[in-house]
Amino acid sequence: AAVLDLAVIGGDGIGPEVTAEAVKVMRAATASAGDAEITTTEYSLGATHWLETGETLTDEVLDQLRGHDAILFGAVGAAPNDTRIPSGLIERDLLLKLRFSLDHGVNLRPSKLYPGVVSPLSQPGDIDFVVVREGTEGPYVGNGGAIRTGTPQEIATEVSVNTAFGVERVVRHAFALAAERPRQHVTLVHKHNVLVHAGHLWRRTVDTVASEYPQVTHDYMHVDAATIFLTTDPARFDVIVTDNLFGDILTDLAAAVTGGIGLAASGNVNISGTAPSMFEPVHGSAPDIAGQQKADPTAAILSAALLLEQAGRAEAARRINEAVWQDLAARATAGGQAAPRSTAQIGDGIAGRL
Amino acid sequence: AAVLDLAVIGGDGIGPEVTAEAVKVMRAATASAGDAEITTTEYSLGATHWLETGETLTDEVLDQLRGHDAILFGAVGAAPNDTRIPSGLIERDLLLKLRFSLDHGVNLRPSKLYPGVVSPLSQPGDIDFVVVREGTEGPYVGNGGAIRTGTPQEIATEVSVNTAFGVERVVRHAFALAAERPRQHVTLVHKHNVLVHAGHLWRRTVDTVASEYPQVTHDYMHVDAATIFLTTDPARFDVIVTDNLFGDILTDLAAAVTGGIGLAASGNVNISGTAPSMFEPVHGSAPDIAGQQKADPTAAILSAALLLEQAGRAEAARRINEAVWQDLAARATAGGQAAPRSTAQIGDGIAGRL
Ligand SMILES: CC(C)[C@H](C(=O)O)[C@@H](O)C(=O)O
Ligand SMILES: CC(C)[C@H](C(=O)O)[C@@H](O)C(=O)O
Repeated sequence: AAVLDLAVIGGDGIGPEVTAEAVKVMRAATASAGDAEITTTEYSLGATHWLETGETLTDEVLDQLRGHDAILFGAVGAAPNDTRIPSGLIERDLLLKLRFSLDHGVNLRPSKLYPGVVSPLSQPGDIDFVVVREGTEGPYVGNGGAIRTGTPQEIATEVSVNTAFGVERVVRHAFALAAERPRQHVTLVHKHNVLVHAGHLWRRTVDTVASEYPQVTHDYMHVDAATIFLTTDPARFDVIVTDNLFGDILTDLAAAVTGGIGLAASGNVNISGTAPSMFEPVHGSAPDIAGQQKADPTAAILSAALLLEQAGRAEAARRINEAVWQDLAARATAGGQAAPRSTAQIGDGIAGRL
Repeated sequence: AAVLDLAVIGGDGIGPEVTAEAVKVMRAATASAGDAEITTTEYSLGATHWLETGETLTDEVLDQLRGHDAILFGAVGAAPNDTRIPSGLIERDLLLKLRFSLDHGVNLRPSKLYPGVVSPLSQPGDIDFVVVREGTEGPYVGNGGAIRTGTPQEIATEVSVNTAFGVERVVRHAFALAAERPRQHVTLVHKHNVLVHAGHLWRRTVDTVASEYPQVTHDYMHVDAATIFLTTDPARFDVIVTDNLFGDILTDLAAAVTGGIGLAASGNVNISGTAPSMFEPVHGSAPDIAGQQKADPTAAILSAALLLEQAGRAEAARRINEAVWQDLAARATAGGQAAPRSTAQIGDGIAGRL
């Protein structure tokens, strides 16, 4: 097998700390599975980089990133009270620019309640679903504007753009994924009773694709109702397919009910292979605990497992997932007794199980 | 005091059953508080009415509704598998048409964990907040469209429209409400890092209005993060102000964490008094249990209390809330022991405490 050539964007805050552990664990898994090695190139990008250089993501760096097999991404974003950085700039001009430029049409976000992890729900049940979020359309396209800004006559608009092309590829991905899972079920989440035009496109596309997967059942849920079921009966879900904004909202809620954002992994996937896919924990840069080795690298490590799986290294990915399960189970057994571990100690612990 | 002249739209499914109890309880509260009487006029509207007449809401009926002091609304919507009714038609051409035509710019949705009510959260804490949802703008305006429908080149858009006028009045309402509550705190929920233009308008408006309320503290939360906190620490919220779509999503989640949609009340308020306000339970028409006296009328009864409060009958409203608390406490004490009560028995029980 060929060498896997990765770009690593640690980013801001806890980002570099957690990606360092993810790389460590990936190398251990690669060795243990007997795969060809991994090479990494670090890219300095994010709020700190912007403060130093005034650059978010140049065309040149974007081109270099395109040359890699995949990207491991940490987290970006300045402290909320850092007024030197225009709000949302790094999110839009770096993170979203990467997702859009590299055509990350399928955003995979698995939600699993790991053994021993405490959910805020008193009866969480056996939670194991994947949100397949569209990643390059919807209200995220930046097609908004304002007139008469700052006057009593101001009007600000945001346009959600949905295309047959973009919707169909993500819906196909959701059905193909469901077909491989034991429960073989897809739930479309939208708000078609209000967002009629986008809703129609999504529903029609689901109906069309569903007819090619007779073994996969499917249903529909409004986004508001979906938040109720995610709280009262999250175990009912298998694969959820939804738009960019609803996916953003539902996956934070899903992370919460499965015991927190510290474990939630994600993959921004370019399904046509025209550019590298990018894997990142769902959590942010947590500037308040940055540089203190306090962050849990598990979400970054699980994102690395997703990366390996998408890169065709299924066995190495399986081993990482297994090691994470063991580590979480050990944490649960130790309970409050264990001394808190540093970011690197958690990474070492997981790597040590490989 | 003058007679209170109400329009009652029972609607579909369980709607007529629960509004009947709400009217019963309102009359009892009015008598007990020594207020002038209530007159009611029933309007037959909804999916069933549409099937019989082909009409959703005529200009004539809308004009008649304008003549009342307030509207008590049950629920509308056909059974999901009733293919005779175009999907979303009744929601848009009746419910949303009423909210938009009667300028219900402020949608009040209180969330309280009543004593004895079981939350799906293991540690819900003392939940008591109000979502102040904008009701006449955002992605609900119906400014969408599609081209090349049904082809691989289809593009469907939805436009969120936000005006200084609409945002300011709802933000003002939120701050005025917070100023009267013990914790005096407002949280703006939006997604300004992505929805830049609308987000700017909302943030600037909050900052401006906040400067007039030095005693009220305020903060900001992205909508995705808000779902996490609603699940892990809902007691932290006091007043949430947000747009039409985010408000729709957050209030279903809020209803879930406070023990269910069966208790969630709402008021669609016309703050300028140019048309009647409308009060409705957050729940839907539940066609599966319709006509069987199985529905819990508590959300409709709490909505009636909101109606009386907005109509200047604070004492009658207070008495209803008190009676509901007592009834819920009695339910909790009885636990699984009590025989299930019919819709009318719950209404009688609450009316009997007045
Ligand atoms: C940082 C932000 C732009 C991003 C999003 O909204 O997609 C984040 O919330 C996420 O879910 O990855
Ligand atoms: C029925 C639907 C149009 C409505 C909405 O989206 O506002 C409902 O969900 C609500 O919350 O009142």
